[in-house]
Formats: sequence, structure tokens, C-alpha cells
Amino acid sequence: MRFKFPLMAIGLEVAMIVLFSLFVQYETDHNTTSHINNTMAADMDGFLKLYPLFQDVHIMIFVGIGFLMTFLKKYGFSSVGINLLIAALGLQWGTIAQGMLHSHGKKFQIGIKNMINADFSTATVLISFGAVLGKTSPIQMLIMTIIEISFFAGNEYLVGEIFKASDIGASMTIHTFGAYFGLAVAGVLYRSGLRRGHDNEESVYHSDLFAMIGTLFLWMCWPSFNSAIAETGDKQYMAIVNTYFSLAACVVTTYAFSSLVQHRGKLDMVHIQNATLAGGVAVGTCADMTIHPYGSMVIGSIAGIVSVFGYKFLTVYHGNAGSCPGFFHRNSSCWRSDYRFNSKVTHLGTATGRVLL
Amino acid sequence: MRFKFPLMAIGLEVAMIVLFSLFVQYETDHNTTSHINNTMAADMDGFLKLYPLFQDVHIMIFVGIGFLMTFLKKYGFSSVGINLLIAALGLQWGTIAQGMLHSHGKKFQIGIKNMINADFSTATVLISFGAVLGKTSPIQMLIMTIIEISFFAGNEYLVGEIFKASDIGASMTIHTFGAYFGLAVAGVLYRSGLRRGHDNEESVYHSDLFAMIGTLFLWMCWPSFNSAIAETGDKQYMAIVNTYFSLAACVVTTYAFSSLVQHRGKLDMVHIQNATLAGGVAVGTCADMTIHPYGSMVIGSIAGIVSVFGYKFLTVYHGNAGSCPGFFHRNSSCWRSDYRFNSKVTHLGTATGRVLL
Amino acid sequence: MRFKFPLMAIGLEVAMIVLFSLFVQYETDHNTTSHINNTMAADMDGFLKLYPLFQDVHIMIFVGIGFLMTFLKKYGFSSVGINLLIAALGLQWGTIAQGMLHSHGKKFQIGIKNMINADFSTATVLISFGAVLGKTSPIQMLIMTIIEISFFAGNEYLVGEIFKASDIGASMTIHTFGAYFGLAVAGVLYRSGLRRGHDNEESVYHSDLFAMIGTLFLWMCWPSFNSAIAETGDKQYMAIVNTYFSLAACVVTTYAFSSLVQHRGKLDMVHIQNATLAGGVAVGTCADMTIHPYGSMVIGSIAGIVSVFGYKFLTVYHGNAGSCPGFFHRNSSCWRSDYRFNSKVTHLGTATGRVLL
Repeated sequence: MRFKFPLMAIGLEVAMIVLFSLFVQYETDHNTTSHINNTMAADMDGFLKLYPLFQDVHIMIFVGIGFLMTFLKKYGFSSVGINLLIAALGLQWGTIAQGMLHSHGKKFQIGIKNMINADFSTATVLISFGAVLGKTSPIQMLIMTIIEISFFAGNEYLVGEIFKASDIGASMTIHTFGAYFGLAVAGVLYRSGLRRGHDNEESVYHSDLFAMIGTLFLWMCWPSFNSAIAETGDKQYMAIVNTYFSLAACVVTTYAFSSLVQHRGKLDMVHIQNATLAGGVAVGTCADMTIHPYGSMVIGSIAGIVSVFGYKFLTVYHGNAGSCPGFFHRNSSCWRSDYRFNSKVTHLGTATGRVLL
Repeated sequence: MRFKFPLMAIGLEVAMIVLFSLFVQYETDHNTTSHINNTMAADMDGFLKLYPLFQDVHIMIFVGIGFLMTFLKKYGFSSVGINLLIAALGLQWGTIAQGMLHSHGKKFQIGIKNMINADFSTATVLISFGAVLGKTSPIQMLIMTIIEISFFAGNEYLVGEIFKASDIGASMTIHTFGAYFGLAVAGVLYRSGLRRGHDNEESVYHSDLFAMIGTLFLWMCWPSFNSAIAETGDKQYMAIVNTYFSLAACVVTTYAFSSLVQHRGKLDMVHIQNATLAGGVAVGTCADMTIHPYGSMVIGSIAGIVSVFGYKFLTVYHGNAGSCPGFFHRNSSCWRSDYRFNSKVTHLGTATGRVLL
Repeated sequence: MRFKFPLMAIGLEVAMIVLFSLFVQYETDHNTTSHINNTMAADMDGFLKLYPLFQDVHIMIFVGIGFLMTFLKKYGFSSVGINLLIAALGLQWGTIAQGMLHSHGKKFQIGIKNMINADFSTATVLISFGAVLGKTSPIQMLIMTIIEISFFAGNEYLVGEIFKASDIGASMTIHTFGAYFGLAVAGVLYRSGLRRGHDNEESVYHSDLFAMIGTLFLWMCWPSFNSAIAETGDKQYMAIVNTYFSLAACVVTTYAFSSLVQHRGKLDMVHIQNATLAGGVAVGTCADMTIHPYGSMVIGSIAGIVSVFGYKFLTVYHGNAGSCPGFFHRNSSCWRSDYRFNSKVTHLGTATGRVLL
């Protein structure tokens, strides 16, 4: 039992190395024989141009999501630590899974977009991780990482290549998928635990400040997230501008409604840490379209409102309206409300809102 | 009373959305009819080239200033939380106010420079916020945000367009303006409170470490701040290099004089958190000029010294020379000393130093 | 005695300013007379293209290394604070020392590569600082900064210009050099102290979370570190990709072996904070070569394993196998194990592993 986790981790890493040696090439590997230097220089130019956006996505995955989940008194190490493990394993497997699907099982080359997409695929698992934090062992997380990214890569291939649906910020493929996957896993494993309170689910002053580090970096880098794989030019420009203003509007309505639904008009740190980000998720699907800045602000405003109400409504529903709501409700309602809203916008169906309730 | 804040916030957000729908366009809106694709591609190239600098400014506003003010034991949430609210509302209003002034009331397009300038305009309010932290309600901050940015936009228009004065790092228009505005508001509202000590103004170990996160990100990103809206080419290059060396020199003299003015030669975290940044402010006005690296180091060195002395002198003046000076004196003297120095350099007049003393 | 530190710091800063006025020029200083605008615009283009990588290196030096060392309960201020002082002084002296060596004592121009190299040279001192943290006065650190960067610049000139050895991520010149220099200093000054435990060397919950901020930013920015001064084009591309995958693989094996060597299979925060970075150091020397992604993953995997074993073995050796190993052993064994591994790879000799044991 004791050796199960290390042996599985080592086995997975060995498998990754073997798969990489079989399938992964440098971008330069084909060019060296036939192309002239100019081409590669131009390629590298594009690489470096997207590199800052890639680094922003990196910050969101490792610092943003990692620290967002530190607000629990006793799960600070787990959230940051296991977050790093999942992300590191996930980006290797994501590179392989997505690369092989798109190359139809042949060798493929690593470009900046592969690296961005690899980071994206880990985001799915990390969102699911939020729903099961403190309830799973590292070994379960390893398995979940491999399985969920496989599903994600298949799902993303379907949405993007077969259905040709537009989902530039990956709101559907990453966020909605990740949230429901996590809720499903949590539902299967811990349904009975849902009704009990948890002593470990408390928040303390400093852990809330640590969580704000995560919130702020997520908030700041979201325009990069929604635009990183957009078409260069107009679409990338619009993805950045739309996300920027959607997030700004979302903050204002989140604060307004957080104060509105509280007993004495005070602001709730849970809303500030989570609902302020709903604007980025909500605008994700259509960020690269001509929705105009005011359109994105409308989307962001509504996202903030729905997210705050989602917390309030769902938290009460579970009979847990104390000053410090338990983590599971807190987190799941957060994501769930985002996704409910999102699903309304994208007409993905409304039945999904009922999961686990 | 309870609904005052939410209603005002919602009203302001609705107003922003209406204003955006009337006045704000994409950069691509004009081009689509007449220009060829090349032009837009070139525009987008410029957009992405400045985007990393914009993100650095973003980090300064949201993480830098937000966490710099967390050093107070009981105001950690307020400082980070209200900081986010002010900045999110401010950047929307700043976009409108500055855009309309420069377009003389016609529709205008959102480029990367508008986004940088919008972030700049929020900086003014956040600096003023530092002077009134813990003494104002969120509703007062909303009003202050709207009023101050209006003044700022007018002021910036005057300095830049009418007087054609050079102020690349916006030291005058942002820092000096923001500091005195905040002190004036604090003076009007809380003059009597100045003499009393405040229990809530204590610092604790971890809050000082959180504040260092703010300090370090501000310190690192300041070269981007001073160069983001500089003319491309020589001037932008010089703004980065000058600010970089000014800040480095400022750190060394700040440590030297912090140790010099302390009882036992120890270093004071207050100086380290604040005076180390004086070099960025001081060089701001002339950062894009040919002052040579050693010139910027002289400016930075003096800024650090004056800032440390400003603390010491002004703190004693208020009869508050304990080991943990109250926040108000601490913060205001910090900025004030920077600005006193700054005003000497820019010959803005010396009478300003007397405000509130 | 009290005035020794301030006077020395002021003296050093004055010396820096004089040296800068004698030797340092803008990149534009030569061009203005003869060249056309086009050339400078192209230069500035290159400057801005590398600027985000430079900022990443900056983040590693000031936030990464600074916060990595905050895990000690009582040395949080010292580590972040003195880290800032050393880095600020060091980058000025590093600019001068490296610039003069490469220009053979003539005037030289400040480009983005000089700024990156200046940051690199401070890294050496900061790594040595880790080995003597809590055991040296600020004044000793000033002296160490000046001396060590002089040696580093000479060493780097020898390796790069005379031997023409390849060491793109500067693993040899920075990390190995810095680690042994620090251990040597610690050995000379405090050999007797090595056997005693230290009460101040405890870690607490929140300080471990602060340290994770350092770890994560170091981990994320390492690809920029290893590629910042690489040749533009293929080599820079490979340096980024190789480091990215080496680090990812290193995380997985670090977790696996951390669990393996612990009593009950638990993960050790010390390993997570430090050994996860070994992949970046290990691949540093050959990051820009065609080692293929799977090759870099093999290097990263082994680096993680060796680093964890290094901790375990060396900690036991010092008879200090408690749950909270003393800082000195902890830190030194960390770096030492990295470098031992590194030295195996680069065939620098195996005798070095014996230092101080």
C-alpha cells in the first residue's frame, strides 16, 4: 500500500518518456532538411510573440488555481502541492493525448500552441480537483488526471474538429467539463459526506489572503487565457479586450450583489475570491467574436450576479448558511453557478444544473 | 442605508455599459471597410508587443498596490478587496473619461495604450485610497473613484495636450496628484482623528511578509510602468534602462539610511516596503530622457534618502515615534516625501509640502 | 560599529555611480551620429522581444529566491529583505564587472543581454546567501556580494570566452559556483556551529506557504532563465521546450521518491519546495542542444530523484533526521545534491561532492 503511490507515479513518468520518444519532435526537425533559415526565424518570432501569453496561462495554472484553494485552514499544502503534481503530470499527458489525436497517431511537433493546450488540459483536472479537495488521496488524483485528460482531449477534438464549434476560451471544454466531472467523482465517492459539516473546512484570516493571491493572478491573466490560442490579428485583439472589460464589470456587480445578499450588507470573501472570475469564464466561449466591449460588460455583469446568487441559493439549499460555509458546497456552487450561467448562454441545456442536487 | 452601496454600484455599472455602447469601438471597426489586412496585422503586432508591459502595469495595480497595503493586521481584506473594486470600476470610467477628452466627445477606439492609460488612472485613486484606508466606507470609495478620475483625466489632458509637458512615468499626474487628493480627503473627513493612536494600525509578522509581495512586484514592474506609453524606440529603451538602475540605486541608499536613522542600526520594514520604490517615482518624470544610467542612479539614490528621512521627520513631527508608527502617518509621509522630492526635481513649487502638517 | 553598514553601503553606491558615469553608455549613443533610424528600431524590437524573458528572470531573482527562503519562522524578513539588497547592489556591480571584462576596460553599452546577465550574476550570490542565512550580518553580505560577483564575472569570462564551453542556463557558472562559494564561506565562518541544532531553524505552516510562492515562480520562469541569453531561433526554442518538459518530469519523480523515502509515505514539503526545481538546474547546461523532449525528461526525472536522495542521505549523515531538519543542512544539501548530479553530467569532477562533509 505504501509503495502504491510512488510506483504508480514512476510508472506513469516512464510511460510518458517512452511516448515522448516515440511521438514528439521539435518544430525544427522537419525544417532543417528542406527549408531555409528564414522560415524558422519567422516561426521563432511567432513562438516568442505568444510566449508571454503562455506564461500568463502558466501563472494561472500553477499560482492562480494553486493558491485559490489555500483558503482552507488545513489543506494549504495539499492544494498547492497536489496542484503542482497534477499539473506537471497532466501537461505531459495532455501534450501526448492532444497531439496524437490531431496528428492521427503519427509523430507531431511541439509548438507554442501545443504547450498552451497542454496547460489548458491540466486546467480541467484542477477544476475537478477543487470539488474533491481533502477527500482524495494522491493516488486517486493520478488516476483522475490520466482519465479526465483522455476524456478532455477526446471532447475537445469532437467540439473543435468534428462539430467545428467555436469555444475560444474553452469555457465549455475546460470549465463546464471539469466542473461536472469533479462533481460526478465527488458524488460517486462521497455522496453521504455531503450532509455533514467538516471541521477542516474552516477558513482563517491568513489563508484567505493567500487565496486572494490566486484570485488576483487568475483575474489578471484571464485575458491571456481567452486569447492565447485565438487566430492572430483581429480575433486575438477582440478576445483580450472583451475579456478585460467583462472581468471589470463582473467585479462591480459581484461586490454589489455580495453586499445585497448578506445580512448586514457586508462583503463576503468567498464571493470576492470566486464570483469575480465568473466574467472570464462567461465570456470565454464568445470572446473572439464581435460582441463589442459593452456586450462583454453585459455578459460579465450577469455572470457576477448569477454566481453570487448561485452561492447563496445553493448554500442555503444544503442547509449550511453559517458564516463559514463548508468547502464542498462553497466550491461546487461556485463553479456550478458559473456553469449554469454559461450553459444558459450557450444553450447547452438546462438539465445540467440539477446534477448532485 | 443597507442598499445604498449595492444600488450605487449597480447604477454605476449600468452607466458604464451605456457609455461604452455609445462611445467605445474596436480598433478594427474603422479598418474593416477601407484598409487591407496588412494594416491590422501590423496593428496587432504593436498590440502584442506592448501587451507584456500592460500586464506588468496590471500586476502593479492589482497585486502590487493591493498587497502593499495588507501590512495592517485588520485591514488585509479591505486593502486587497476594495483595491480590486476601485481598480475594476476605475479602469472602466478611466477608459471613458480619457477617451472622450482626447476624442473631443466623439466615438473612440480601444487600443493597448487606452488600456494602459485606464490602468494608470486607477493608480491615482489607489494611492489616495492608501491615505484613507480603514477610514472610509466602500460607498465613499465609489464616489471618490468617479470624482478623482474625472479630475485626473482633466489634469492629464491639461498637462499632456495643452501644456505639452513631459511626464512619461506620470509621476506628476498620477503620484503627486493621487497623494495630495488622498491627503485632502483625509484632512477634510478625519482631521481630529489624526492625533489619536489606532489599535487597528498594528502590523504583524505575516502581514509584513504579504506586504513584501506587493513591494517586490511593484519594484520589478516599475520599468514597464515608466516605459509603457513612451514613444517606441529610443525613448522606450531609455525609460526601461533608467528606471531599472534608479530603482537599484534607491534600494542601496534606502537600506543605508534606514539603518542610520534607527536606534540600533537595524533595518525598518516600513522603509524597505516603501522607500525602495521612491526611485521609480522620482525618475518617472524624466525616465525617457537622456539622463544616462549614472544620472538615474543619482536620482534614485537621493529619492531613497529623502524618503527615509521623510518618514523619520514626519513621524516624529506627529509625536508618534513608537516602534510601530500608525498607518496614516506612515503611508502619507511615505508618499509625501516622495513627492516633496519629486516636486523639487520638477520645480512644481515647494509650498505643497505643507499640506496637512 | 553602528555606522559601519550604512557607510559601507553609501560608499559602494557612490563607487557604482562613478563607475557607471565612466564606463556605461546607452545602446543609442553610438548610433545617433552615423546610423539611420531603422537600425535602432530593429534594435528596440529585439529589446522588447527579450524583455518578457528578462522580467521572468527578474521575478525569479526577487520573488522566487526571496520567498523560497522565507520558510524559516524567524528569518522571513531577513531572507526577503537582504535578498533585495544583495540583488540591487549585485546587479549594478555585475553590470560593471561583466561589461568591463567583455569590453576589455573600455566603455560599453547597456543592452537587454547586459541586464539579463546582471541579474544572473546576482543569482550566484543569492544561492550562496542561502547557505549562510541567519548567520551573517548585512555588512558581511555586502562584502560577499562584491567579492563573489568579481569571481563570477571572471569565471564566466573564462568559461564563455576563453574555453568556449557551452553553459546556456549557466548551471555551472551560476549554480555550482554559487553553491560551493556559499558552502566555503559557511565552512570558514561557522564550522563549529554545524553540529548544533538551531531553534530559529523551525518552519511553521504559513512560512511554508510563503516559500511555495517562491518555488512556483521559480519553477514557472525557469524556461525563460535557461533561454534568455540563448541564440535567437532554434536554440532559444529548444531551451524553452527542453526546460519546460524537464521540470514537469522532475516534479513527478520528486513526489514519487519523496513519498518513497518517508516513514509513512507522506510527502515532504522540503522536497516539494526544492527538489522540484532540480530539473531546471540539471538541464541548464545543455538546454539549447538537440537533446529531444524525452531526453530532457530523462534528465529532469533523474535530477528529481538524486535531489530527494541527496536530502535524505545528507540529512541523515549530519545526524539530524528529525521531522524538521535544520535549515543549514536542508538548504545546503539541497543545492549540494543538485550540483553533485550536475557535476556528474558535466564531468566537472566528483571530488567536489566532499566539500564540508
